[in-house]
Amino acid sequence: MKKGLLIVNTGNGKGKTTAALGTLVRAWGHGMKVAMIQFIKHENAHFGEIKAARKIGIEWHVTGDGFVMPGQDPTEAIRRVKEGWKMAQERIVSGEYDVIALDEFTYALHFGWLDTGEVLEWIDQNKPAELHLIITGRNAPQALIDAADLVTEMNPIKHPFDKGIKAQVGVEF
Amino acid sequence: MKKGLLIVNTGNGKGKTTAALGTLVRAWGHGMKVAMIQFIKHENAHFGEIKAARKIGIEWHVTGDGFVMPGQDPTEAIRRVKEGWKMAQERIVSGEYDVIALDEFTYALHFGWLDTGEVLEWIDQNKPAELHLIITGRNAPQALIDAADLVTEMNPIKHPFDKGIKAQVGVEF
Repeated sequence: MKKGLLIVNTGNGKGKTTAALGTLVRAWGHGMKVAMIQFIKHENAHFGEIKAARKIGIEWHVTGDGFVMPGQDPTEAIRRVKEGWKMAQERIVSGEYDVIALDEFTYALHFGWLDTGEVLEWIDQNKPAELHLIITGRNAPQALIDAADLVTEMNPIKHPFDKGIKAQVGVEF
Repeated sequence: MKKGLLIVNTGNGKGKTTAALGTLVRAWGHGMKVAMIQFIKHENAHFGEIKAARKIGIEWHVTGDGFVMPGQDPTEAIRRVKEGWKMAQERIVSGEYDVIALDEFTYALHFGWLDTGEVLEWIDQNKPAELHLIITGRNAPQALIDAADLVTEMNPIKHPFDKGIKAQVGVEF
């Protein structure tokens, strides 16, 4: 029996988005239909992935316009999250996809911009049995971890910023 | 000052190879020259990645022919590791690459098939300053972690095998 997995990449380390990209590319290599929907972060934060996805022909959407700073009005960010989630829902229920990734989606849940219980209930009732759904980001709510089939925590053991090395084009973003 | 990083993806969780694949694809998206050299595992264990890499046009080598079982003669596996390392060395010193990944390479060090001290000394003396070198696998020796700039540990929080779900084509391999 084939079963689509609910996969969560969380933790404070590198590799959450990168592993999701790798999974999409691998599935695409198998001829599967895949899509990425990125939340919260602005397009500039992802430009390496986006360039690669465009060159390959992988469906890729950026719905956010950057992290909200403390004290900043989150209204526009919340509107974009809800719009992104609607876009995700349409693709999830369509039955046309094999793998869909919701990148940085945990923040929308963690910040309470979407209700975690409602989102999980919707996924439980609407995700096609064959579809693999990947959710990434720090601070994954416990209810999401409980609902997931595969959860990996990426932990930073050592980070180049500790050594005063700046972020690297192509490797870090 | 741009500096090529020595990156290690280790731990017992998913995502070590997948994140390396994602990093190569992202760098390739930036127009960088990248290569993957896979150790130990047989080609069949990687076929999704290989298919994807071939479709994209990313240089990809599989040098292993499977894990050695306890009691099995490791002579052929050791020969292949040494051949793979020679192939890696040639590409590292060539100065032609921006990112090179040595997948499952930690096992060659952990099993003592290559001397960790010698490998690290060779990398220290021969890796071009601009090259990002990614090494993946469980049981990364402490000396490798000490030498690395960026180390991420992928930890399994929950694995579908716990639930009795079989490995999934396209997602797991």
